[in-house]
Amino acid sequence: MITSILESPLYPIANPKSIAFFGASNNYSAMGSGILSTILSDGYEGNIYPVHPKEKTVLNLPAYSTVKEIPTIADMAFIVLPTKIVAQTLKACGEKGIRHAVIVSAGFNEVGGQGVERQQELQQIADQYQIRFTGPNCIGVANSHIKLNATFLPSEGQKGFIGMASQSGSFITQMFSYLDQRFGQGFSTGFSLGNEANIDMVDCIEYLGACPNTRAIALYIESIRQGQRFIEIARKVSRHKPIVAFYAGGSETGKRACLSHTGSLAGPDRLYDGVFRQSGIIRAHTIEELFDFCYVLGSSPLPRSNRLIIQTHSGGPGAAAADACERAGLELPLLSSKTLEDLASFIPHTGSVNNPIDLTYTKNPLDFFHGIPKVLLEEKGADGMLIYFLASVEMVRKALTGMGVAKEGLDTQINTIVDAQCHSIASLIKTHGKPIVGFSFMTRANHFVAGLQDRGVPVLPSPERAARAFGAMVDYKRLRDKIILNG
Amino acid sequence: MITSILESPLYPIANPKSIAFFGASNNYSAMGSGILSTILSDGYEGNIYPVHPKEKTVLNLPAYSTVKEIPTIADMAFIVLPTKIVAQTLKACGEKGIRHAVIVSAGFNEVGGQGVERQQELQQIADQYQIRFTGPNCIGVANSHIKLNATFLPSEGQKGFIGMASQSGSFITQMFSYLDQRFGQGFSTGFSLGNEANIDMVDCIEYLGACPNTRAIALYIESIRQGQRFIEIARKVSRHKPIVAFYAGGSETGKRACLSHTGSLAGPDRLYDGVFRQSGIIRAHTIEELFDFCYVLGSSPLPRSNRLIIQTHSGGPGAAAADACERAGLELPLLSSKTLEDLASFIPHTGSVNNPIDLTYTKNPLDFFHGIPKVLLEEKGADGMLIYFLASVEMVRKALTGMGVAKEGLDTQINTIVDAQCHSIASLIKTHGKPIVGFSFMTRANHFVAGLQDRGVPVLPSPERAARAFGAMVDYKRLRDKIILNG
Repeated sequence: MITSILESPLYPIANPKSIAFFGASNNYSAMGSGILSTILSDGYEGNIYPVHPKEKTVLNLPAYSTVKEIPTIADMAFIVLPTKIVAQTLKACGEKGIRHAVIVSAGFNEVGGQGVERQQELQQIADQYQIRFTGPNCIGVANSHIKLNATFLPSEGQKGFIGMASQSGSFITQMFSYLDQRFGQGFSTGFSLGNEANIDMVDCIEYLGACPNTRAIALYIESIRQGQRFIEIARKVSRHKPIVAFYAGGSETGKRACLSHTGSLAGPDRLYDGVFRQSGIIRAHTIEELFDFCYVLGSSPLPRSNRLIIQTHSGGPGAAAADACERAGLELPLLSSKTLEDLASFIPHTGSVNNPIDLTYTKNPLDFFHGIPKVLLEEKGADGMLIYFLASVEMVRKALTGMGVAKEGLDTQINTIVDAQCHSIASLIKTHGKPIVGFSFMTRANHFVAGLQDRGVPVLPSPERAARAFGAMVDYKRLRDKIILNG
Repeated sequence: MITSILESPLYPIANPKSIAFFGASNNYSAMGSGILSTILSDGYEGNIYPVHPKEKTVLNLPAYSTVKEIPTIADMAFIVLPTKIVAQTLKACGEKGIRHAVIVSAGFNEVGGQGVERQQELQQIADQYQIRFTGPNCIGVANSHIKLNATFLPSEGQKGFIGMASQSGSFITQMFSYLDQRFGQGFSTGFSLGNEANIDMVDCIEYLGACPNTRAIALYIESIRQGQRFIEIARKVSRHKPIVAFYAGGSETGKRACLSHTGSLAGPDRLYDGVFRQSGIIRAHTIEELFDFCYVLGSSPLPRSNRLIIQTHSGGPGAAAADACERAGLELPLLSSKTLEDLASFIPHTGSVNNPIDLTYTKNPLDFFHGIPKVLLEEKGADGMLIYFLASVEMVRKALTGMGVAKEGLDTQINTIVDAQCHSIASLIKTHGKPIVGFSFMTRANHFVAGLQDRGVPVLPSPERAARAFGAMVDYKRLRDKIILNG
């Protein structure tokens, strides 16, 4: 186990000050050119040294005909070359003194036959020159905190706290806009693993565990190669940072798909359930859950128990959330007499205080964001909340217009109100140390949803997803406490 | 069972040519004013006669001090008055000759005690004057096809084919933007049921079953009141139109929440499973599924069997979809030698034809939208497809720029390409009569996603949701065939 992120072989790969780039040209349709152009457009500020046998410049950067000619020893080599010349290039990098690489090129273990020998050759060269590398057959690496996006799809530029290690490159590149549009989030660092010929998933877990920008770790798994080491390291990391895994190989059909995709031999569902539990890892059963769980776990203080309160304006979403809570192993306690007393002045006669707390409407709509959740967070019999959000800027506008507020300055006043409400919920989480998971059928196009998310209050798109994410926090808390107890 | 939609008591409620409106004033914060202002802003083109004891005009419409003074007999009365004067108002409507009403006012059965008597009084008046009404304690009605939105939240104005009957008003009003933003859809007609004192869910199923704008029926259920009639009518409707139900009362916690919300006594999960199966109804286990299933069922021809092909560019999303397919009871057959032969020229050496068909990349990206799915739809051993979409306008732009296409006219050319690809997939569904369900991690902000959806190709936001929605089609097909067989 590393004691500092600087010890990880992934540190120079995720935080390179300079990159020797192999495989980009001035032909835009080549994959290497695509990746280099993403690196440039996403705003990476380190030095890039393209190597090209013929061109003098590549995408407007001075090019070098061999790695030897680069005037410095780059922190890492990024290789997107035809299969045949990958080994000799890696060797040349080793001779130059480069000790880290990302090999995107395919045509190795995943194609079988000669590919297996080619991969062994890469491993031998790496051993000889003490090179550590990700891939081959991966799609690159992304670290939003240094604006490094070495993949072929531009990101939304959004920084974030979700660290990811993936046995499919798609779940790095194709999730930039997903995380941005759903949660206003990005990856802290995302690693595409490819064939794991040298650096593997366990190295990534170790790195992300030590990464100060990462608050939750997402794993996309088709097969775990070194079970014992995986459990050992994950168990250590999960003592202080949540890990969530999605495993695609559990069904027969999934297993066959994984075999075609990465040549990996997946194991039965139950085996993986056991491995995850021993490792302190929360299992997600869908890709949506993988990111929902990481997002909520990375946003929130952990609940002490599985008892929570649902606050809603609307009976239906409240009932759906309540039903989903029981199915997610959560309990909805009845409120204590003290809480009922404190709540009385806020609740109209049409409302219900049976948990879900259904306001139906509120005399003062702002109570929904302050007075009411404050009372509910003080309830000793519960350790967190789900809150349903449906307010919109249009409602605030209507209310203010109805109160006779002049059009002039109305927008500013609306923004001030939205900001203050979102800030209030975020503050309550901090002062009470209990998690609040919001849910809303609206997206970030709604200013309350975006305002809450941007202040660290997680908001998910349905009652069931909010309930299951809360359940994931409870599961993680239990697993972690057990691991700490057992040493 | 009605033989024409005109026979339904809901016809004048969902298609009124004129409305007598009770409870709106020039005070914008009153709920009635809010609803009337939504009706006006959403563009309803019928006549509205506000009734108000004092005002001469209400929201700029001429007002009448009593219903008697209205110069015509309105098709329906819309009542948002204080509880105490609802009965006398309904009576006055009856005397005037109005035979249909929506009663939004609360304070009846759902509050118990006197409320129960008050509701009985409404029922007696209705019987006396042969009035049919929805509510009390509902939030209104919406019919996008005549731009009628009689609820307190504006809709996005999007027409659609999903008909809804809901025991929670939230699932009408709060789903306008949800359906629009996810699917570019709206409700054909949405009914909020409230206490079901007169018109109930079964009447809605009957109406929506006969409604030509409705291609799939969504039900939000907290409790079924007349089980035998429910089964009988739903079983008839589901012979020709799919019905999907979400039931919130199956767990103990959900049951308690439903009791607080609508005073309804929910029954155990298994009982409802049985009722739904007998009725030919597909059960959704989340709110997201409720709308996913309706959206896909209303978009697609039904698959003959549970065998499908997954087409993808990306191994990970393909494997996740494959795994989800098996869990959803679907099969991924291997391709016949004819299909393999026809496919050969399209597949690069890095690709896989093991189903998922993983192209990794395509020599001609347009093949992904035409040549390849055409071959796969001709496979006799499969009856539908899932396709993963990740293409974006930016990719097309990059490709065209790389090919040296001039900036001038580039946008037009991009639009033409996107349109043609989306059109191609939509046409393939029609010519082959097999369903294609798309999935993408991108939203309608992506032009391919919006272009496909707007041409009738359903695209869902994750592999698992696409697989489960395909599973819902298979389930519906089986249930329906069984019902037709058994007469």
